[in-house]
Amino acid sequence: MLPRGRPRALGAAALLLLLLIGFFLLGGDPECERLEPDGRAGDLGCPRCPLTPRVPSDGRLRGASALHGDPLAGHWDHNRSACDPWPQLPPKCELLHVAIVCAGHNSSREVITLVKSLLFYRKNPLHLHLVTDAVARNILETLFRTWMVPALGVSFYHAEQLKPQISWIPNKHYSGLYGLMKLVLPGILPPGLARVIVLDTDVTFASDIAELWALFAHFSDKQVIGLVENQSDWYLGNLWKNHRPWPALGRGFNTGVILLWLDRLRQVGWEQMWKLTAQRELLTLAATSLADQDIFNAVIKEHPELVQPLPCVWNVQLSDHTRAEHCYSEAADLKVIHWNSPKKVRVKNKHAGFFRNFYLTFLGYDGNLLRRELFGCPSQTLPEAEQLQRALAQLDEEDACFEFRQQQLTVHRVHITFLPHKPPPPRPHDITLVAQLSMDRLQMLEALCRHWPGPMSLALYLTDAEAQQFLHFVEASPVLSARQDVAYHVVYREGPLYPVNQLRNVALAQALTPYVFLSDIDFLPAYSLYDYLRASIEQLELGSRRKAALVVPAFETLRYRFTFPSSKAELLALLDSGLLYTFRYHEWPQGHAPTDYARWREAQAPYRVQWAADYEPYVVVPRDCPRYDPRFVGFGWNKVAHIVELDAQEFELLVLPEAFTIHLPHAPSLDISRFRSSSTYRDCLQALKEEFHQDLSRRYGAAALKYLTALQQPRSPA
Amino acid sequence: MLPRGRPRALGAAALLLLLLIGFFLLGGDPECERLEPDGRAGDLGCPRCPLTPRVPSDGRLRGASALHGDPLAGHWDHNRSACDPWPQLPPKCELLHVAIVCAGHNSSREVITLVKSLLFYRKNPLHLHLVTDAVARNILETLFRTWMVPALGVSFYHAEQLKPQISWIPNKHYSGLYGLMKLVLPGILPPGLARVIVLDTDVTFASDIAELWALFAHFSDKQVIGLVENQSDWYLGNLWKNHRPWPALGRGFNTGVILLWLDRLRQVGWEQMWKLTAQRELLTLAATSLADQDIFNAVIKEHPELVQPLPCVWNVQLSDHTRAEHCYSEAADLKVIHWNSPKKVRVKNKHAGFFRNFYLTFLGYDGNLLRRELFGCPSQTLPEAEQLQRALAQLDEEDACFEFRQQQLTVHRVHITFLPHKPPPPRPHDITLVAQLSMDRLQMLEALCRHWPGPMSLALYLTDAEAQQFLHFVEASPVLSARQDVAYHVVYREGPLYPVNQLRNVALAQALTPYVFLSDIDFLPAYSLYDYLRASIEQLELGSRRKAALVVPAFETLRYRFTFPSSKAELLALLDSGLLYTFRYHEWPQGHAPTDYARWREAQAPYRVQWAADYEPYVVVPRDCPRYDPRFVGFGWNKVAHIVELDAQEFELLVLPEAFTIHLPHAPSLDISRFRSSSTYRDCLQALKEEFHQDLSRRYGAAALKYLTALQQPRSPA
Repeated sequence: MLPRGRPRALGAAALLLLLLIGFFLLGGDPECERLEPDGRAGDLGCPRCPLTPRVPSDGRLRGASALHGDPLAGHWDHNRSACDPWPQLPPKCELLHVAIVCAGHNSSREVITLVKSLLFYRKNPLHLHLVTDAVARNILETLFRTWMVPALGVSFYHAEQLKPQISWIPNKHYSGLYGLMKLVLPGILPPGLARVIVLDTDVTFASDIAELWALFAHFSDKQVIGLVENQSDWYLGNLWKNHRPWPALGRGFNTGVILLWLDRLRQVGWEQMWKLTAQRELLTLAATSLADQDIFNAVIKEHPELVQPLPCVWNVQLSDHTRAEHCYSEAADLKVIHWNSPKKVRVKNKHAGFFRNFYLTFLGYDGNLLRRELFGCPSQTLPEAEQLQRALAQLDEEDACFEFRQQQLTVHRVHITFLPHKPPPPRPHDITLVAQLSMDRLQMLEALCRHWPGPMSLALYLTDAEAQQFLHFVEASPVLSARQDVAYHVVYREGPLYPVNQLRNVALAQALTPYVFLSDIDFLPAYSLYDYLRASIEQLELGSRRKAALVVPAFETLRYRFTFPSSKAELLALLDSGLLYTFRYHEWPQGHAPTDYARWREAQAPYRVQWAADYEPYVVVPRDCPRYDPRFVGFGWNKVAHIVELDAQEFELLVLPEAFTIHLPHAPSLDISRFRSSSTYRDCLQALKEEFHQDLSRRYGAAALKYLTALQQPRSPA
Repeated sequence: MLPRGRPRALGAAALLLLLLIGFFLLGGDPECERLEPDGRAGDLGCPRCPLTPRVPSDGRLRGASALHGDPLAGHWDHNRSACDPWPQLPPKCELLHVAIVCAGHNSSREVITLVKSLLFYRKNPLHLHLVTDAVARNILETLFRTWMVPALGVSFYHAEQLKPQISWIPNKHYSGLYGLMKLVLPGILPPGLARVIVLDTDVTFASDIAELWALFAHFSDKQVIGLVENQSDWYLGNLWKNHRPWPALGRGFNTGVILLWLDRLRQVGWEQMWKLTAQRELLTLAATSLADQDIFNAVIKEHPELVQPLPCVWNVQLSDHTRAEHCYSEAADLKVIHWNSPKKVRVKNKHAGFFRNFYLTFLGYDGNLLRRELFGCPSQTLPEAEQLQRALAQLDEEDACFEFRQQQLTVHRVHITFLPHKPPPPRPHDITLVAQLSMDRLQMLEALCRHWPGPMSLALYLTDAEAQQFLHFVEASPVLSARQDVAYHVVYREGPLYPVNQLRNVALAQALTPYVFLSDIDFLPAYSLYDYLRASIEQLELGSRRKAALVVPAFETLRYRFTFPSSKAELLALLDSGLLYTFRYHEWPQGHAPTDYARWREAQAPYRVQWAADYEPYVVVPRDCPRYDPRFVGFGWNKVAHIVELDAQEFELLVLPEAFTIHLPHAPSLDISRFRSSSTYRDCLQALKEEFHQDLSRRYGAAALKYLTALQQPRSPA
């Protein structure tokens, strides 16, 4: 076992000689200063150590001035005494607790970068206590469930229920009411929880959080809150005319990183304390400017004995006029970076580029890599993860279709509503367009938005880095930024095959309207389709009377640029002039032949068609329709199987006479290229089809026989 | 300044009391144990400390058994004595030296992952001493020059020149002769260099290399080599019948990570020493099995006083039958992971998944993020980087074309010949196809290989993670794997616009034949084109007599699948039947109109055509032709400007009567979508065009007037 790092030379020889003599003479108590696994300090008669001077990172003591220097300079001189200068790490498998307040779509994205940095450096089990609104909870519950990180627990607390406790406080800070919620944490976290580290969503770790946790050991008996001094002059006042900040000790403290000793806070009557202080200050001050931070500082000004000042490196504050340079210019190590300007990583700071690199490291970091076990701690594997591992272990690596089987078992991390999203108002015949895509189809989104004015639910298959490129793409597009009714769900990439049906199922599960239009990303619907479909659903009384799938006939253009037909008449003219074709007319006519394009030309009313082998029309169905079969990954048969399922469940197939959608040209996908070039790929698809039919027979009995028969018949041209 | 970590409780109270008493009583010497900046130990009368017992990571001393435990268990018990248990880090700005032997394409890729992990954790300036063959030197010189990492120096040493010193040693190890070169490092590294850390290319750092460097402080006066014990039973012998390893102390030592005290090695006559030992052993042993490692171990067996054993965490060896688990199962920290199985990261090991994540972290890590300054050390900025920073600082952020100007100044990291490549044999009329692409065009590569049997030089615009996907794509393709004459040059992505002309210039600069065919990735040349062009060059006596660009007429198909014409006659038939068009006939006819397709139909011999505005044919030119203008980034005018340049330099434009190339359909690129939708984009392109013409006038004077006139004339339909 090696220590993780070493303090610098303190007259090494002399020191160590003494150390060992001391050890043998006095009998070192190995339990001393350890904290019990439940988070309470072991009361073994060890003297509590206030924080003592640090050794500078260049390995030399620099005399008294360094020992009594500016607390911003990385070491601090409060309560100097003869005590442990090396805060010890908590035991290897001790569970560390972290609390974070998180609300809305953007903070939910932001907090993930923080969590990734935490997980990257951590060596202890962690438990996250997340105070969330409904939006963040929905996103983060899905994310952590699918992330399956070992030795990471997550609990959720309803922010909504806390609002009454703080809504009486007028607050001007951009974080709104949520900014105040850290004040009430001692009251809402489990009573058995003794200590917690509280973090803002806009901090990034550059070190192991256990080192921060170790600083609890330095609290005196009276100290209950650990904080880093503010690195701006805000609380000194007079930044401008009539600038009157809340009261604070000197520069005050920043609450982006807090060590809270919860059981002591409860003992000292924290709730009473901060409320009285806030009420009193609000008699003369109109509102808080910096949310909870103003109130924490006002309480500390009154009770300075409560605070344990922490080294500045644990909260390097990068606001616009920060004095943080005094901290980091001498520090060899930065521990936590705090983007506490409303401009976040775009803050103007001469070293912002340097710090941004830390942030970008975790922004683009593949979160799948954080699914790693902690060595030497009792197994922390989740039951779902164990089940998955068993299933994966049962696969035969020599099976030619191993990749296919592995891919369909893969649990992808899912980040639903990656961007801000407003659910559509409840309307009885409303329809969500459902589709999936990867980076190479982003350029379809703007056109799709112009063609479909209704709600959309889109699954995007991306790496963590690509998700950020996607975010910038949307921000740069006025068309996309203007739409709040398009929900983007990021499914993180893992494995060699495109999990097309898993993606469709994610998008389908997140559709919030009673009906869905199951489309593909390279199709543009007729401009009128959204309105026409809603009217058709109403007319056909789909909801109550009929169990039907409405077929939207599919066409294709081979031109990069063409004028989209504004009516069925225009479409037919283009078809006649050879500028449009029925979809896959040249390559795969059986996919759409049952739609009966000849009849559609003349049709004035919806007409029923029969299922036939390989039929894969684009359809409108109720939201609770059967899911797609996730065994079909990569290219081939993924939609065909779904239509079989609809037919087996006795959905009528009704073709709508005025509906149409048009496929735009693109290069063949990597998967279709692999399908064409690899006989193994084609053989595996065949094997999957056969297994699908076996399952179908099990579920539908003799009724499923017709699908098997159709599969075994030689193909006739459509 | 804070210490970077803390050892665990050693009876904290007792210890610290003693420590401070000791400090005041004996007067700690802050200089003690420090090493001088030149790398020699400061001789200040401090006792040299052999390595002493470590404190286990759970913070408790576990009695004598832990102190005298298995050296594999993370702490080690050699020369136990009362001395510094916390090796101190070298001073913050001390330059650390690393030597690596690297040869060939694959090792050059591998070493970059090692270097990324080094740079990620390092806090000191580093100097890499790279012993390379010509291939690795070519790759790595380009890479480090374009990477521009501050506080990173690189020196190259010719492996070729070292071969005579070791080629007399028969060696069965897969690393070949290069595996033996570590033996001769003391002789070839600069005489002033006192110490160096030697690394194999297949190690990954999970910690700051300064911590490893700090272990030099523990060498006794006689010790010259620091090594970690082997974590396999190889040197114990008897693994199979007649298994007779080289002599070693016990399990022997692994040479994947070596601390070499160079000046002492020179003093003890290292060169003589290892040569004598090797010669003697080779009298009875046929060859080395593990290259340099066998010889290091044989020397150490004879002179055990030379070796300083290092903690096992500094070389966790993941071979197939490793005993490494004894090391890492108790270690809280792993410092260096060594993939010392020929299977590398595919090694079978029950924890391989865990370790692989460390490796994958750096494999996919964006190397651009490592271009960060070291705080608090004297500026280490390279002159090129400073010049670049000045140029970037002069840009006006408010300029609407800021992104364009920034993109053209960007120096992209370039990894030439990313995959194994065999240069074409010198032939007087040979032609390299030159093109560039990003991930979304990978699926073109196989078809391109089928159509062009000659050499190719392709620039790929990728992220670090995409480069790995690309590698797997090629490995999975028998067509691509079979080709050794296709050179792939990875240009790492940075910035929002596609640097099309910088990419073309990278591919062009790496072409090794006298002629180049300047193509685009979405074109497939006629099957016969490679042979036909070589014959035409010879016939037209291009090399000596004529300065000409040979025009290859361009066509396009709008079909996903079509039968490629095998002759001009077939092509003309497809053209007549409307299955093929001349390129961009519908959208941008002026781009190719000057080729005069009507004349081409009938032509039997090459014919000369005149330049006209917006002409952008695909041409064959000598390799030393003008470069592309890098100011054109994103979509538009990038080839047009190059043809203008050719015309200005009086290249004849000769259309070849039997040559053709066909464009395949694909979705519009993101850049063309932006061009179409953004008026700023179009305005910036216009501004760039005007600046291009001003430069043209400066260079060609009145002769350039015709281009400006053409630019200003209203467009007539082609």
